[in-house]
Formats: sequence, C-alpha cells, structure tokens
Amino acid sequence: MAERITPRDVDYSRWYTDVVLQAKLADYSPVKGCMVIRPNGYAIWEKIQRILDEKFKETGHVNAYFPLFIPESFMKKEAEHVEGFAPECAVVTHGGGEALEEPLYVRPTSETIIWSMYKKWIMSYRDLPILINQWANVVRWEMRTRLFLRTTEFLWQEGHTAHATEAEAEAEARRILEIYRCLAEDYMAIPVITGRKTENEKFAGAVRTYSIEAMMQDKKALQAGTSHYLGENFARAFDVKFQDKDGQVKYVHATSWGVSTRLIGALIMTHGDDQGVILPPRIAPTQLVIVPIWQEATRARVLEFSERVYQQLKTVFAVKLDDREQYKPGYKFTEWEIQGIPVRVEIGPRDVEADQVVLVRRDNREKVTATLERLTEQAQKLLETIQMDLYRRARQMQQENTFRVNDYQEFQKILEQGAFIEAHWCGGGECELKIKEETKATIRNIPFDREVEKGKCIYCGNPSEGRVVFAKAY
Amino acid sequence: MAERITPRDVDYSRWYTDVVLQAKLADYSPVKGCMVIRPNGYAIWEKIQRILDEKFKETGHVNAYFPLFIPESFMKKEAEHVEGFAPECAVVTHGGGEALEEPLYVRPTSETIIWSMYKKWIMSYRDLPILINQWANVVRWEMRTRLFLRTTEFLWQEGHTAHATEAEAEAEARRILEIYRCLAEDYMAIPVITGRKTENEKFAGAVRTYSIEAMMQDKKALQAGTSHYLGENFARAFDVKFQDKDGQVKYVHATSWGVSTRLIGALIMTHGDDQGVILPPRIAPTQLVIVPIWQEATRARVLEFSERVYQQLKTVFAVKLDDREQYKPGYKFTEWEIQGIPVRVEIGPRDVEADQVVLVRRDNREKVTATLERLTEQAQKLLETIQMDLYRRARQMQQENTFRVNDYQEFQKILEQGAFIEAHWCGGGECELKIKEETKATIRNIPFDREVEKGKCIYCGNPSEGRVVFAKAY
Repeated sequence: MAERITPRDVDYSRWYTDVVLQAKLADYSPVKGCMVIRPNGYAIWEKIQRILDEKFKETGHVNAYFPLFIPESFMKKEAEHVEGFAPECAVVTHGGGEALEEPLYVRPTSETIIWSMYKKWIMSYRDLPILINQWANVVRWEMRTRLFLRTTEFLWQEGHTAHATEAEAEAEARRILEIYRCLAEDYMAIPVITGRKTENEKFAGAVRTYSIEAMMQDKKALQAGTSHYLGENFARAFDVKFQDKDGQVKYVHATSWGVSTRLIGALIMTHGDDQGVILPPRIAPTQLVIVPIWQEATRARVLEFSERVYQQLKTVFAVKLDDREQYKPGYKFTEWEIQGIPVRVEIGPRDVEADQVVLVRRDNREKVTATLERLTEQAQKLLETIQMDLYRRARQMQQENTFRVNDYQEFQKILEQGAFIEAHWCGGGECELKIKEETKATIRNIPFDREVEKGKCIYCGNPSEGRVVFAKAY
Repeated sequence: MAERITPRDVDYSRWYTDVVLQAKLADYSPVKGCMVIRPNGYAIWEKIQRILDEKFKETGHVNAYFPLFIPESFMKKEAEHVEGFAPECAVVTHGGGEALEEPLYVRPTSETIIWSMYKKWIMSYRDLPILINQWANVVRWEMRTRLFLRTTEFLWQEGHTAHATEAEAEAEARRILEIYRCLAEDYMAIPVITGRKTENEKFAGAVRTYSIEAMMQDKKALQAGTSHYLGENFARAFDVKFQDKDGQVKYVHATSWGVSTRLIGALIMTHGDDQGVILPPRIAPTQLVIVPIWQEATRARVLEFSERVYQQLKTVFAVKLDDREQYKPGYKFTEWEIQGIPVRVEIGPRDVEADQVVLVRRDNREKVTATLERLTEQAQKLLETIQMDLYRRARQMQQENTFRVNDYQEFQKILEQGAFIEAHWCGGGECELKIKEETKATIRNIPFDREVEKGKCIYCGNPSEGRVVFAKAY
C-alpha cells in the first residue's frame, strides 16, 4: 500500500494496473491469463449483479444454469459461431482418468448448449417466450491479458431468449440494451453511446448486434455490453420449431446478451485519478467510511461518538467504521482513497465537542462540516451530488474528445491523440477494414440517435446517410 | 405434465427422477453427467444463496472469485488431497488451438489455487483472519449420476479461511456447521445430525471434518454439508507462514466448508409425496399461488377480485397470480401441486360474493376459508404452521427409523429395511471398512450430542465410549 501509483500521464496502462492491484480489486493468479477477483472487486460485481438481476426479473426474466462443457459437435452446428469462437476455446480431452470420446469445450458463450435444450422445451406458441438469464463463468483463451478487461476466464451474465416473432425478439434485444445503458449511466456514472454494430463487428452468429460504448480517460473506447438479435440462426442449427396459433410450424427467433466483470475495468478507467479508484456512490459497496482521530486522552470520547455516528448512518447507507488501533489516521485516509470510497467521515476531539463531523469528498477533496442532527440528510445530498458530478465530468470528457471529421488526413491526425471521431462511412466492409489496418480504429457503433445527414465516406468518398463513431478500442 | 409420477413405494428412485423432471427443476443435458438446472430449480438455489450469503456476511465473511483452472503441479502439492481428487478431475490439455505445456485441472474444489494466493497475501498476524467465500461451479467426474445428488458439474459455495491459531480455526469450522444446521433445519425443514466424520470418511487433506446428515424418505442418509478444520496441511504445502504478535514465524491454520445444489435433492426427498414436490414456505420461491375459477359470466368479477387479493398478498408474501386463459383450474392445481407451492388460493364466484378466499395446504390438502380482512394474518399463520409441520413430520420419520442396536446380526437385518443405526464402534478404521464391505453402511458421523456410554464395538467387541450413526448413504 505504501507503493506509488504511476501517474496517468506518465503511463496510463501502468496506472491502471497499479490501481487495480493496490486497491486490492484483483490480483494475478498462477494460471496463465486468469485473475483472482479479490473481495474489494467482487463486492462491486455483487452490486452490479443485484442491480441487473432486479431489472431482469422486473422484465419477466428468470435465472437458470446450463453445463460448463459443450460437446465439440454442438459448437460446430452454427457455422459463423464456431468460426468465431472455436479458436479461442479451452478443450477438455480427459475426464475421470480416461481420454474422452468427444472433446468438450469449456463454454466461451452458451448459445449452442442452451439451444440444444430449447429444442426439448419448445413445441408450441404456448411455450414462448422463454426469457432465461444465466450468471456464469466463461473461458476465452487470450494471449495478451489485462486485469478485468481481457482475461481468459471471466464472470458474466448471458441472457438467451426465444420468441415467436422477429418483432418480439428485436424488442427484447433493444429492451436489454436500455437496461445496460441504465446500469452504465445511472448507476456507474459511465456515459455510453448506444447503437448498432457493423457487419464486421457483430457477434459470431447474430443478425444484428447492439452495443453500449464508453470512452476511457485515455480516449480509447470500451465496449461495455452487447445485445444480439440472432434471427433464426440458432433455431435452424438446432432445429427448434414451434406450432404457432395459426397452426403453422415456424422457426423460433432468438436473442442473446451479456455484460461481464469487464465493467469493473470500465468503472476504474472512467473515474479513477492518480490517488486510485473513485467509486460512484450508487455502485460503491461502501459509501462512507468513518475515520476517528484520537490521542490517548481523547480516545474513549472520540470512539464512543464515532460509534454513535456509525449507528446513525448505518440505517441508511453502506458505511464502515475504521476503528483499527494499529494504523494511524493518515494511513487510513490513503487506504480508503486508493479504494475509492466516495466520502470519508472524519471525527476528531473538537468535532465531538461541537457535535459534528467533517465529510470529505473522494472525487475533489472538498470538505464540509455537518452537525449530527442534519448528518443523514447532508450525507444523502452529498452522495447524490457526487454521483451527478462524476457522470457530468465523464460526459464532458467524452464530448470534448469527440470530433466531427470529414477528411481522412485529419481523421488520422486526431485519432493519434486519442478521440472518438464521428465520420461518414459508405457502409462497405472493405473501407472499414482498410481504415482499421491503417489507423487501428474500428467503427464502435452506428448510434441510434445519429442525425440523418448526407455526406461522403471518409475513406472512399461514396455517398453516406449519416455518421458512425470511430475509435481505437480496448 | 400429464405424465404419471411413479409412486414412492413402487420405485423410490424413479419417483425422485419423475418429480425432478415434471416439476421442471432440472433436466438431463447432452453432456454426459451434467444437468441443466431449470428456472424452478434455480429459484430454490437462489433462496439458499441469499440465506447463506447473509449469514456468512453477518459473521464477517466476504466473497471473492478464484480461477476455474488449477495447474496440475498445484494439485500435487498436498499428498492426500491429490490422491482424493485427481482421479475424478476433468483435464484441459488444449487452449487457444495449442497443446498446453502443463495440463490444467478443472477445479474439483479450490484449496490449492486459493492457498497459492494466500501465500502472497499473508505476512503478518495483521493479515489474519482471512474469511473468504466463493460461489462457484466445480467438476468431479462421475460415472453414475443422479439429478442434483451426484452430477459431474455442480454449483456450490466454498469457504476458505486462514487463522493464526488452531482454536480460532476450529471455532470457525464449528460456527459454519451451525449455519448449515440452521439452513437445513430452520429454513428447509430438514432435520440433521451434526457431528464429526471418521478418519476414513473425512475430506482429503483435512484434520477433522464435520458434517450435517439427513435421512431421506427411503431411510438412506444424505450428507448435506461439510466443514473442515484443515490444520496446517495446506499452509505447509504452499508455505504460508506469518509473523505472530510474539515475533515468531508460524504456519497458518485453515478451514474450508461447502454446501451445494445437492441440497435441492435433499429437499425433494425429505418432503415430496406421490403428487410431487412439497416446498417448506421459508425456502419456497413462490409461497402462495392464486388460481381464479370462473365461467364466462363470472370472468370479469372473479379476475378483478383475484387481482385485488394478489395486490394485498404481494406486499408480504412471494405470491403468483395464475390468470392464464388457456388452462383450466384443474390443470393448474396439478401443475402447482407438482411444483410444491405451499398454499393454493382458490377464488370462485361464490368466494367473491362472500369477500373471501379458500386456502389449500399443499402438504395435507386441508382447506380453510379466509375473509379478505383477515387474509394476510391467516396466510402468515398458515405458512408458519406448514413450516413447523413439515419439520416435525420429517423429524418423526427420522426418529422412528433410528434404532439402537448392539448385535451385528440385528444390525444387518434392520439395515436392510432402511434405517439409521446407533451402534458402538471401537474407533478402528478396519471394523468400519469391514462393515461397509459387508453391509454397504458407513458411519455417517460421530454425533456431537451423543451420550457417554460404555459399550462394545458392534463388529469386533472391543470397548467403545459411545455410539456412532451408521446408514447406507447417497
């Protein structure tokens, strides 16, 4: 903890790793490419789980659990899907001391195993829709890994729904994207761009992929969640048909969607500063931490008062009382700053006399005094203000670093310093790939709310109907 | 759903499978030995998770997540542990399209990977205790599988704690066993025997293993949870030492403990009847289901009244309103009976007129009328009564089928009809193994609350200090 955090402007990437390790959010494991999510990090994941799980259930979804292993032959049933995922799979070849007849893939995603079950469960329109979500671990072999952002194993939720019509499935995919947007913006204070992925960038096996895209502090993009309309692709691969009300037998329409522990990386990279993590109050597992400041003569009084404050705050907030004897207040301040607790509550002997506490904001270090009588109310307001300020700051950062560009030379120049670029694009996959080759920028998505604007493709000059968002991405 | 459930006295084992499948708790998957936990089953698991997670947190535990994969060399560091687990592991030999240098075991339990991390995190007494729990999937290759009870992959929680002293670790192991007892008895209405496992039956790598053991309706035992004091075994294997307050460097003491989705099997086999599952109200994801009974002329009135009842009950209970148009009430009754919802709320036209509903108990089919005014209170009482009755009935079953036996011939005879047998045992592993060979009965545990009673070993006649519990087990 005494170690120094590399400042962001010295080395952003090292800053990120320093923060994750020193805030004890995660640690490297002895298994190549896999990380350990430590209690501080897992507590954030639990908050994300609770928020999403409630929203999924409110919209009629239920949870279930499907096997970790997928027979090789299942992976191969959907052509695009196997091409996209098989090369990055971990493969079990032995079990119970014997070689297996058929290798088992550790799930990289569960469409194939789930649709093999839907085949058993769906006969009639009465069996639809199926709205199932799964909280699970998945494995995608990675060569270059980064804590939370890209690891061989990660935790996520994956929704897999089955519908009678395209319209219903499409509405489902969009409904979920809105839940993801809400989680990112309203809880995690991460502004996102919602839109549709291009053909090149869509999910392997999808008809349409939608995403939320966020800008990190180094002005690179991070895809924070995706939702797919899968059409009849998996229904055809697994022969899942139903008898409709009109008596006709039809293929089922599918969606799938997921967010992962990667969101914790997005959270750190959106709000953190050179002192460590900054957690928005609505996602913070601990919102306030009380640090009593005493000397031998004032010890009893200060601790007794702190305990009273703790009891008062605890009824409304997620609060910790740090009354550890073996550490000095300064040490505690630093520790909680690194971990990003939104508000520190300082209580010294003079505060006890005045029946007050000092509230210190983690994000801008502003201090404000609060009497015990008005403490709950003031803390509530302060936390709300911090939440809003963090969002506003991040939104401003994103806006200030987003540029409308019409010229490819300018495009390349601006991209170098890090940016989101709104540019015209002809819709052709070739232009998209050329731009990627030459600049490393990809089309993050085609925003839902883009203006209709006639223009010329930034690469080939052919006509375009509107701008798309280009950026380098994690 | 129209299928018949095999009666218990015809074939208990088929009854169990019929119930699990028809109540849609789980389904067979195309992956050998792995099951799908369907939404009805997973909802029970979520209840178990919420109850345990709260109790773990109240007692100072935090959640974390460790890698799914364990390098082969790690598994081999604790001699007994590898001997116990390696033969039943699934092994990943390929990843990202290439053969791995070192095979990775899919975790059968996480002691080795976790203690390799504790090595990094523990230096001083200040770092202790570590009280970490993990919710995860594990894999143990199984030849003969049964839904929930024994599957190659299952879900569980595994606690792994590190302490400065044996006394502290021992207290932790016992504290957790008490939490498991409370979950089983007070929530799931499953009476259990708490006690210590014999040397032969303890966990591979433990010094002492404690367990809770329940009697199923076929009078076989089911181990429903275990808690281990691991001594310094894993600390020595992974070289985890700490500097104590007295300046000395010592090995860390460990515990581990877990319960799994197997508990859902125990629940079904403890309470179910020939009509299906019976869920104790405190663990039931849905406690009451409202079934309106109408004809065309009364439809609007009955549905409007049912909706009012639903709104009233929903503020206090987990309640469902089954207003599906395409099914008749009789069909619905059967469906909810199979699924074991504790109370059915029937509402017909005459009930509407009388401003009342009919409450029907799932466990004994007793009907009682309740006016709307007193409904909440009556439902509350009824659910509590059902909870108590289920526990009492199960406890009585267990007591009536537990025998004190002093003669080995009698032992064998009684065992054949199914029973728990309290018998004297000399403490020798050989007698224990001989009895197992000859009768298939194992010592379930040495109960904490057994009387001190001088006696003679049921097998060899050598002196014994008290009785232990023998039974055939799942």
